[in-house]
Amino acid sequence: MLQELFTPSVQHALDLVGIFVFAISGALLAVRKNFDVFGIAVLAEVTALGGGLFRDLVIGAVPPAAFTDLGYFLMPLVATVLVFFLHPVVERTQSAVNVFDAAGLGLFCVAGTTKAYEYGLGLTSSAVLGLATAVGGGVLRDVLANEVPSLLRWDRDLYAVPAIVGATMVVLCIRFDSLNAATSAIAVLTTFALRLLAMRYHWRAPRAWNRRSSTREKPEKATA
Amino acid sequence: MLQELFTPSVQHALDLVGIFVFAISGALLAVRKNFDVFGIAVLAEVTALGGGLFRDLVIGAVPPAAFTDLGYFLMPLVATVLVFFLHPVVERTQSAVNVFDAAGLGLFCVAGTTKAYEYGLGLTSSAVLGLATAVGGGVLRDVLANEVPSLLRWDRDLYAVPAIVGATMVVLCIRFDSLNAATSAIAVLTTFALRLLAMRYHWRAPRAWNRRSSTREKPEKATA
Amino acid sequence: MLQELFTPSVQHALDLVGIFVFAISGALLAVRKNFDVFGIAVLAEVTALGGGLFRDLVIGAVPPAAFTDLGYFLMPLVATVLVFFLHPVVERTQSAVNVFDAAGLGLFCVAGTTKAYEYGLGLTSSAVLGLATAVGGGVLRDVLANEVPSLLRWDRDLYAVPAIVGATMVVLCIRFDSLNAATSAIAVLTTFALRLLAMRYHWRAPRAWNRRSSTREKPEKATA
Repeated sequence: MLQELFTPSVQHALDLVGIFVFAISGALLAVRKNFDVFGIAVLAEVTALGGGLFRDLVIGAVPPAAFTDLGYFLMPLVATVLVFFLHPVVERTQSAVNVFDAAGLGLFCVAGTTKAYEYGLGLTSSAVLGLATAVGGGVLRDVLANEVPSLLRWDRDLYAVPAIVGATMVVLCIRFDSLNAATSAIAVLTTFALRLLAMRYHWRAPRAWNRRSSTREKPEKATA
Repeated sequence: MLQELFTPSVQHALDLVGIFVFAISGALLAVRKNFDVFGIAVLAEVTALGGGLFRDLVIGAVPPAAFTDLGYFLMPLVATVLVFFLHPVVERTQSAVNVFDAAGLGLFCVAGTTKAYEYGLGLTSSAVLGLATAVGGGVLRDVLANEVPSLLRWDRDLYAVPAIVGATMVVLCIRFDSLNAATSAIAVLTTFALRLLAMRYHWRAPRAWNRRSSTREKPEKATA
Repeated sequence: MLQELFTPSVQHALDLVGIFVFAISGALLAVRKNFDVFGIAVLAEVTALGGGLFRDLVIGAVPPAAFTDLGYFLMPLVATVLVFFLHPVVERTQSAVNVFDAAGLGLFCVAGTTKAYEYGLGLTSSAVLGLATAVGGGVLRDVLANEVPSLLRWDRDLYAVPAIVGATMVVLCIRFDSLNAATSAIAVLTTFALRLLAMRYHWRAPRAWNRRSSTREKPEKATA
């Protein structure tokens, strides 16, 4: 077990923030898909807790945190109520939501990588599972909404890369025995900043070499 | 461990009934989607066993009941054979299927909540996992069939609410130390009756407040 | 624990081959769906490791092999790089890919069934889980790509049946105490050969009896 990165209450508060912002993104998609209030709640819960649930099942931490911490379960319901009544306001503040989501990405990939390592995974596997923790909820959200996961689409700004960088920083810190609250915070902030830059400058990842259809599809780029 | 709610053989028979009716709903969707006989069997198995499988993975009851009880595996195959040869008849008796499905919903949410509590989850978490047990198979069915889960859609009659009520009744009985065969049966029957009423009177859950598109989509209601 | 079927290094090499060919099929679908390079990598990883991951979660072998063996994780990345740069070549050699995929199907269903039995599952359950190991990755691939799983579609050549035969041969060998490297190899080769024959002669499974739409959809058959 590593030393506590943050005081437990700080860590818990950060977890709840991450869960909340991910839940908002799930609830907003549910409203756009015209789901009813239970559909909104389900999508909020799945988006917020899905990544951590997958991580806990893989490392054998059962029952998963999502089913032992009542706050984890209630936070998405708060997001549901908020989006249910105020979704036009929330949509208008989409850029604010994106900023929070970027923060959630950073928090989840660092916390996920750390927890995976604590449960005995190797360094590379810990980073991979940290990445899966951070992006897994969003993938489940899109699968349940019957859409191609935005993580996989070429016409979306970079999402995985910031999390990969953050998870890699964490395992490098572990490798060189220097993981602590300060270096963890730096990893979170780096992920956060990279994701903000990716959105600001519309960084995209390349598609397969010589993809013939690239010209045809260019107009789509504008609508992304 | 709670006292046995029902005699083991009664409980097992009820489980098999629930599995069978859920399998029928999966097999019928597979026929509608034009899947081949193996596709029908896969969708029947997933619909019938998916919710319980998820519950068992979460509470750490591995290998899950779906892989230890041969009857659980064979029941969906029986449903597959039946639907394969008699699907026009089964479709015509869709309302009968819906009645059985409502019974399955009640049985699964009560049994799931009880098992989750026996494995040490808190009251709220047990109810949530009981709900997931009851609706999880149907969600997996729709995801595999590449459709928006009917659980999430606003134009479907209430499905989650009856299960929420049933699971809540179970945890209240546990809380007040009065869970037994009689109170369990009442919870099952309440869920069952609420779902039947929801179908009879087309109860729907509200969509997000001020949803602009509500007028435009009204005609869809009739086809639901 | 059964005696080692093959020497550990041979078994490991066979696993890596199976992972590699499944990853190729995932990466190719990702290119067709126009995903970016990270989407290609994710789909390659999920296709290659998804089935084994599911098996390991069900039998309680956590952390799953996918997260403890670095080679398992790296192989799909090699497939990603290859497909990223050479996908027109790989597509042109689609029939070669199909041959490798058939080999992967045989290897995974035999290895999956054997591992499930070693972890204490019954004979039938072991065969079912072996089948799920072999086909699970492909189903996850199609779900993430937002397509109807090709496993379920009537207009695809038989895929499940060869794996069912292979898994059944393994459990029969276990039952009659004659599972060894030779009989395992025969089960792998039988699965492999049946799948090749199914592709060569376009064997299809029947759809539901008296399916009215069968005439209308005949033309589709040619494009499958």
